[in-house]
Parts: sequence; structure tokens; C-alpha cells
Amino acid sequence: MPLTQKNLLGMRGLSREGILAIFMAADENRRLLDTDHKKKDTLKGKTLLNVFYENSTRTRISFELAGKCLGATVVNMTAPSSSVQKGENLVDTAKNLDAMAADVMVIRHHSSGVPHILSRHLKAAVVNAGDGMHEHPTQALLDMYTILKEKGGFDGLRVAILGDIEHSRVARSNLLGLSTMGARVVIAAPATLLPRDIHKMGCEVTCDMKAAVREADVVMTLRIQHERQNVGLFPSVNEYAQQFGLGSELLSYAKPDALVMHPGPINRGVELMSEVADGVQSVILEQVTNGVAIRMGVLELLCGVR
Amino acid sequence: MPLTQKNLLGMRGLSREGILAIFMAADENRRLLDTDHKKKDTLKGKTLLNVFYENSTRTRISFELAGKCLGATVVNMTAPSSSVQKGENLVDTAKNLDAMAADVMVIRHHSSGVPHILSRHLKAAVVNAGDGMHEHPTQALLDMYTILKEKGGFDGLRVAILGDIEHSRVARSNLLGLSTMGARVVIAAPATLLPRDIHKMGCEVTCDMKAAVREADVVMTLRIQHERQNVGLFPSVNEYAQQFGLGSELLSYAKPDALVMHPGPINRGVELMSEVADGVQSVILEQVTNGVAIRMGVLELLCGVR
Amino acid sequence: MPLTQKNLLGMRGLSREGILAIFMAADENRRLLDTDHKKKDTLKGKTLLNVFYENSTRTRISFELAGKCLGATVVNMTAPSSSVQKGENLVDTAKNLDAMAADVMVIRHHSSGVPHILSRHLKAAVVNAGDGMHEHPTQALLDMYTILKEKGGFDGLRVAILGDIEHSRVARSNLLGLSTMGARVVIAAPATLLPRDIHKMGCEVTCDMKAAVREADVVMTLRIQHERQNVGLFPSVNEYAQQFGLGSELLSYAKPDALVMHPGPINRGVELMSEVADGVQSVILEQVTNGVAIRMGVLELLCGVR
Repeated sequence: MPLTQKNLLGMRGLSREGILAIFMAADENRRLLDTDHKKKDTLKGKTLLNVFYENSTRTRISFELAGKCLGATVVNMTAPSSSVQKGENLVDTAKNLDAMAADVMVIRHHSSGVPHILSRHLKAAVVNAGDGMHEHPTQALLDMYTILKEKGGFDGLRVAILGDIEHSRVARSNLLGLSTMGARVVIAAPATLLPRDIHKMGCEVTCDMKAAVREADVVMTLRIQHERQNVGLFPSVNEYAQQFGLGSELLSYAKPDALVMHPGPINRGVELMSEVADGVQSVILEQVTNGVAIRMGVLELLCGVR
Repeated sequence: MPLTQKNLLGMRGLSREGILAIFMAADENRRLLDTDHKKKDTLKGKTLLNVFYENSTRTRISFELAGKCLGATVVNMTAPSSSVQKGENLVDTAKNLDAMAADVMVIRHHSSGVPHILSRHLKAAVVNAGDGMHEHPTQALLDMYTILKEKGGFDGLRVAILGDIEHSRVARSNLLGLSTMGARVVIAAPATLLPRDIHKMGCEVTCDMKAAVREADVVMTLRIQHERQNVGLFPSVNEYAQQFGLGSELLSYAKPDALVMHPGPINRGVELMSEVADGVQSVILEQVTNGVAIRMGVLELLCGVR
Repeated sequence: MPLTQKNLLGMRGLSREGILAIFMAADENRRLLDTDHKKKDTLKGKTLLNVFYENSTRTRISFELAGKCLGATVVNMTAPSSSVQKGENLVDTAKNLDAMAADVMVIRHHSSGVPHILSRHLKAAVVNAGDGMHEHPTQALLDMYTILKEKGGFDGLRVAILGDIEHSRVARSNLLGLSTMGARVVIAAPATLLPRDIHKMGCEVTCDMKAAVREADVVMTLRIQHERQNVGLFPSVNEYAQQFGLGSELLSYAKPDALVMHPGPINRGVELMSEVADGVQSVILEQVTNGVAIRMGVLELLCGVR
């Protein structure tokens, strides 16, 4: 089942069939990653450029490993060493990289919409690896794939997403994807971190963390970024932790077998307490391994090798 | 037809036969890059070190892709992470890298002559990837190869090179190479950016941009570096653009089918106007793709696999 | 002969048999590095992560080349681009990388003990690539392997280690390994750079450089770090050079065929004079090549492919 699109720019517009095609490809690749020989040749002769204008160890490494395990030729470009400093505009830089015979360009940028804009100028397939506060589709796909593997399906599943929704591309992509797959999503955050009109995206919205977590099958917490701290959105990291952090008491409102998820990196003791992060319900490291498998699947589908 | 030299340090001393050997190798590699399977094994088991003391996204990536598409083992070293900081001298660093079983070392350095000096101490073949204001031979080769592909030959061709000649290793290497191949080169720049004695290199020299461009088959503009701005070489970027930038009006003096070239990154609206950069005569992105092919050819020839 | 341990954290605890197994593996790999085809497939399908929290060009490149020449999938992570900046703790970062299907993690960190701590949390094999002032086992192994190749054995060999012993993980690892193999080690340093209780490690200790070098079969000098200069440990770099630097006069006290070694990068004119560094007794560049071979051997043994 091929992906009927050239790029993966977001979960918006990705059909149920497209998502399932990616999950099927991830399945096979996850099995490969669990063996002693994590290498295929399906992308041999394809060129993958990782273009990161924003630092991200785990996402860059995850895509790099995905590409290399598939036999692709992988090259990294990070902003500090780039022509950005020389005053070249973004589209020119991208078109130059494109002209170096790129097949796929994985793009992370601090501004929302950059991968979309660039995709209109490039021959290479574009994968959005996180753009500003907009989307991060492979993160949502790996989250959803992890839920699928643990819960067996999405129908009627109640997924609570807690934390800084306003600034989270992860929340936005998950909300779109989970809705497509038939899960019920409840969003919970301090009022200052809730985007206006978020309820129009088809989810339940609350500022009551307990109400959100109650009867949840999945509880996903989001990273609180320290730089949000002194701009009046919440009083302090400590108070955030007390009122909105996920500890065992708050988790007890969820179903007993609820999954605990986090996109990482975790601020322990802030949005997530260690007893929960390291507890039996946590699938956080499973998310990480699935991330490589999902990205392998996405790359294969975009390159048309499935 | 092999290259009868161990290193590629500059266009100076590179014979017509050597240049043609590189073009033949590039031809085959360009065809490979145009396919869906951009991978050969001609350099499998060879070790390529990219040693960049000066930032250059596009040149580093171009060499990295060239090496990897040929199956070589490629490792990057950039100055900020290097032993430079620990006070080790340049020759010792290079000899150390050389001793790690390197076959080719691609060296970019902000000081003229560094690749030449290092080559005397190394077993590995050295490729000069740009040294100070001196030479940048693979850039000249990719420029010349692009001209050859578009124009079919060099005999009697009139090539105008416009801009900051004084500080340009690209101009110097092109001037040497184009002269070897029988083209007529005219150099045009503000008087403050013309090297004294440049006419001794066998080219026409003028400060009149229109005279330079008139009847040209190729118009190559050079990047103006912002850091030159406040040292009295020209009044301002705006005035430079007005008087010396290549727009459609200035281009109209050239032959109707003249090629527009630029080594990148472009300062749009300064040395090159967007209507020309993106116009039908522009072969700027073609230069980029040919750059990978040329570097593949150079690496193969220096490794003796042709 | 396999290595009966999962990790290589230090020379402490590494048996004579373990060391010999590594030397045997290095032998075969050194022969490979001396050919024109420096590539095997023994680690194909294995994933190697180079995790460097401290800059080190040569060690990182040496491990990267070792892994790539064995066909492994190699990915680098360096601290400045890491999640460290985002406040993630060290163990979480490592567990995340581990979860990306890593087989081996090569870890360099400025704090002593970090690889040991991390190894307790990881599925991947851990190689200590230098931790604070503690150990640097692959450096000691490559030093010892170089001695073995030049001298044929260790029994009764007198090895003088000169310089900043106090801060040197290289000295500590060599002392442990050389003692295991039956060499006699003499440590010589200014009194301020000698660790208290160093004699308990089974070596001769002196502040008299000539006494140390006398009748030595091997003279190993250590790098003096400039940052030690103004904290009262020695008067100045110049005086250090005069009193403790290895020049031809001091070397004349050693056996005529004594080897001169240095782990690099060298401060020429400080701990080592150029006439000795570049003299016939110097095996410094041989150490570098052997370093790649040793690391290839260690990686193969830890991955169980021998």
C-alpha cells in the first residue's frame, strides 16, 4: 500500500490509509531493529539530507539511523555551519541542497510552515521533522504506533494530552492523527497554555487535570520549556509541577493499565515525576525505538520502494 | 586517461589533458546522479577525510556526497571541534589524520597555501577545497564543465567574470583553467577590487561592466562579501548593486544565449538580481549538480580507480 | 579468543588474556589498514554511537573510522548539539540513544566515572573513550600494542612515563595495563603533578627525570595542559620545558633504541622537543595508525564477531 503523496509535511491531510501504510512499513522495520543485523538495502542509492535549523539530538539521530539502516546515503546539515550565516536565503539554500541530487530532505526549522514553503521549490521529497509550533508528524506517528502496539487499536480510546499545548507541535500533530484514527482526545493545560479555538479541532478541552486523566487509556505529558517560565504563563516551574505535573496520584485517576507517554527530553520533577516516568506503565523508551522504525517506514514509502 | 599527479592543489599546472580526464570522469558520474540509484563501489575501501577549517556547507556536503556515492568511507573534521583549540600545529594535526589510514584529504583553509604546505607532509592525496584568496580548483572545474556541457567547447568563447576579483579564489582558478582550455576571459570589477598585475594572467581587464559583458558567451558574477563593505573598497552594498550588480539591463549587452553563472551563495539584489538569477539563462543550479559529479571524478582519478 | 566482558570501561580488571585477544584482533585489522581496501563487513548491521561530551578530534575520528571500516552504522553525537542544553539528565539521554537500537556506545566525558555509571543502565556495550582524569583504555591498548610490535614483548621492559601524571587518564590506564603485562613502569613528574599514593599502583615514582629515563626501553611523555599553568602547579610553560621536557639530552639517558611515545596532541617545545618528536626513535604516528586497528579489534570483540 503506497503513500499517495510526495511529502510528509504534517498529519493534516494524511488519510487513515496513509497512516496504516506507514504503520505496516514500521512493523517490518521494528522487527529488523530487534535483530542483530539492523541493515537493509531498500534505500541504497538514495540520498537523504538531514537539514536541521534547530538543534535536536534525538530527532536528527533517529532519522540518520533510519536512513543508514536502510542503506541510504545520509548527510547532515546543521544551521550553525550553514550558509545562513552568509546571508543566503532559505529557499536558495534548500534549492542548492536539492540540486546535489537529493532524494529526501528532512527539515527541522524553528518557524512554522518552512517545510511546506520549501517543498514547493524542491524535487526531493520533504519530511517535516518539526516546524515551529506547527507540526511534527513523525513524532505523532511514532506515538500513535506505540499506542497501537500496546492497545491493539484506537476505536473509543481516550487519550489525555497534558501540558503546554499552545506551543506544542507534538500535541497538534497527535490531535490530528488520533482523531483521524478514531480516538477521543482530551487536552488539558493551564488556561494560559491553551490555544484559543483548540476545541474546534474536535477534542475535549479542560483546565482540570484530574478530569482529563479520569478513565484515560493513554496519558501523554508534554515538555514544559524553561524559557516559557518568566513570561507570565505560569508562576514557576515548582508550582507548575505541583498543579500540572504527572505523578502517581494524578495517574491514579486514569485506567489502571493506562500508558504513560512523553516525547522527550523529559524535565523530571516538572511535567513528569520520576516514579511515573520509570514506572511499569511508561512506554517512553518504546516510543524511542518505534521512532526509528516509523521513520524507516516513512522514508521507504516516500522513496517508493514499497 | 589517468591524472598524472598525486594532488589537486590548484588549476595552475593542471594540463589540458588533466582537465579533460576529469571532465570524462564527471560525465559518467553525472549520468549516475541523474538516475534513481546514485551509488557505485569504485572507492569502496578508500578513506576520505573532509578537513574544513573554514565553514562551507555546500562544498563540504558536495565532497561528502561525492565520496559516499562512490562507496568511500567518509569522515568530516571541522575546525571548531578540532585539536586547533588545544594548540596543536596544523602540520601535526594533518599528519595525525594522515596516519589514520587516509587515502584522500579534502582541505579547506582560510589561509592561502595551506593545502600545498600540508601536501608535502602527507601520504594521502590532497584536494584543495578552497584556500584563502588563492585557489578553489574543483569550483573552477565544475564551472568549466557546466560551460562545456552548455556551449560544447571553449575555443573562442568569451567569459566575463564580474565582481570582487581581488579576494576571489574562484576567479583566480577559473582564469587559469579557462585560459588553459582556450577561452578568452575578461575580468571586470570596481578598481578597488582588482588585483594589481591581474592582466599578467592573460586576461582582458576593465572597470566598465558593460564593456566586459558585451558579446560575452558566459557571464559569471562573484559573491560580494559583506565584511568588505566598511573598509573603503566600495561605498555601500546598495551602490555596489546599482553600479556593478548583474541585472537584466546589464545582461542585455551579452549574447542572447549567454550563460549566467554564480558560485553561490548568492546575495540577491547585490551582485546578482533575482530576475537574472532565476531567468532562463541561469545555469546556477546546474553548476551545483555538476559540482558533485566533478568531485566524484576528481576523487576517482586521484585514487587511481580509472 | 573472545573478550569475556560486555563493556570496555578501563584497563582495571582487564586480564592478560583479554588484552592479548584485543592485540590479536588488532593485528588482523592493522594488516587491513595497510592495504588499499580498508573495509570489512564484520560489523555490518551493528549500530555504533559515538557520544562525545568533550571535544576530541582524533579519538572521535579514530573510533568513527574503526566502525565504518568494519561496515558498522556509525552516528556521532557531540555535546554542543545535544539535549544537554535542554536540561535532560545524562542517564536519560544515554537510555534514549540506547533505545535507538544501539549495539555499542563509545562515550567520552569530562567527569570521571560517567561511562561506568551509564553502562549500568544500557543494553548497548559501552566503550570508555576517556573519562575525566580516570581512564582511557583504548589509548593504553594502542600504546601497549605499539610497544609490543616494536619490542616483541613486555617482560622486563622498563617504561618511563613523564609529565602531568596527576591529571592523566592516559598514564593511569597505561600503568594498569603495562603492569598486567609484566612491564616495569617508572613514573616521573614535578612533585605537584604526582598523585598522592601513586606508588601503591605498583610503579617506581620519582621527581628526577634523568633517573626515570635511565635505561628505559620506552619513554612516554604526556601532554601538559595550558590551563594548568597559572594555578601554581609549575612556574611557567618555559620552565616546565627546561626542567621536564623531553629533548635529545634527556633522551640520551635511555637505551639507544628506546621508543619515544606521546598520546597527542603534542605541545612542541613544552613536554616534547621537535628533535625528539620527529627523530628516528619516535613511534608517535605509528601509535595513531595502531589506534584505529585497536579500536576495530575492541569493537569486533565487544560485538562478539570474533
